[in-house]
Amino acid sequence: MAEQKATNITWHDGDVTCAERHSNLGQKGATLWMTGLSASGKSTVAVALEKVLLDRGKHAYRLDGDNVRHGLNKNLGFSAEDRAENIRRIGEVAKLFTEAGMITITSFISPYRTDRDLVRALHDDADLPFIEVYVDCSLKVAEERDPKGLYKKARAGEIKGFTGIDDPYEAPTSAEVHLHSDTMSVAEQVAALLDALEQRSILSA
Amino acid sequence: MAEQKATNITWHDGDVTCAERHSNLGQKGATLWMTGLSASGKSTVAVALEKVLLDRGKHAYRLDGDNVRHGLNKNLGFSAEDRAENIRRIGEVAKLFTEAGMITITSFISPYRTDRDLVRALHDDADLPFIEVYVDCSLKVAEERDPKGLYKKARAGEIKGFTGIDDPYEAPTSAEVHLHSDTMSVAEQVAALLDALEQRSILSA
Repeated sequence: MAEQKATNITWHDGDVTCAERHSNLGQKGATLWMTGLSASGKSTVAVALEKVLLDRGKHAYRLDGDNVRHGLNKNLGFSAEDRAENIRRIGEVAKLFTEAGMITITSFISPYRTDRDLVRALHDDADLPFIEVYVDCSLKVAEERDPKGLYKKARAGEIKGFTGIDDPYEAPTSAEVHLHSDTMSVAEQVAALLDALEQRSILSA
Repeated sequence: MAEQKATNITWHDGDVTCAERHSNLGQKGATLWMTGLSASGKSTVAVALEKVLLDRGKHAYRLDGDNVRHGLNKNLGFSAEDRAENIRRIGEVAKLFTEAGMITITSFISPYRTDRDLVRALHDDADLPFIEVYVDCSLKVAEERDPKGLYKKARAGEIKGFTGIDDPYEAPTSAEVHLHSDTMSVAEQVAALLDALEQRSILSA
């Protein structure tokens, strides 16, 4: 867990309540945290869900593993420490977007249970909805897809510490949504996610 | 400038255009970047502006120096390197919020021109509006206010590297908005900021 380094800092409360934000946006904020192997289809379902929500006039924003690594987390690599810091920062940013009232869709491998649980705790502490989504796909199928050729490189030893090959993926044990992305269509997966949002009254203010 | 460490990453385009986001939100995104001495009134005007925007049904979100240091940047202190990384991360997050269509109000001392210019460049490169706001208050007035007793501690040598005392504040030379917070009322400052947003057609889609 990151140590609090700065001292002499105080909290500034705003003059805007969550209810006002929600009323303006016609929805509540929530973090949908996709986790799964590389090539399990996290980004595919995230992009599709974002599009469907926007088409319905809702406000969603997607934080993507690869994209964030070009910006906020460009100074992080793939060591155990850097992976943890990668997820910690993204968790904090997702929390801010959700506090702002957005439906925040993250798609990161996020292989370690401890890291995901820290992000969940961040949201719980702030009383913000955190919906863990297990994008479940067998290693066999993910490796057959291999759209970026990464599994091939990992098997050849050209990439070290690759999740599923020589680094563990710790599957969620109590994810709010469990998508079987090797057997469900993208539309079916999106429907399951919309259902999860509706059950939690996220799509109305 | 932060080095790109991760390799084997690719960019995922979404299926949602900026125009769709703006149409849904009834506004465009923009980053209002407040800079000024400690106690110059950055947070005060940021809180007031956010409230006025929300009251008008607009969507604004405030990133605050002190608040962000409790979360995203809790592992950063006040060394030159950490200060630069603090601003870099906030700049990246502001850019994401603005890309999402929010009116993003940041209030950080951000004393170094180089750091602010990097954040401006980030926005320019993505064709996102960046409005630098110089919250200009004399050191004398800021030090008289000293709501957190920080200037007193800095003068006593209990805080080292304090902006304006033993660390420089590099005033903006070409800020889009120049607020004289020691002579203008908060309402006057908010009006100037609304004017800047209206001039740039931010408040309509």
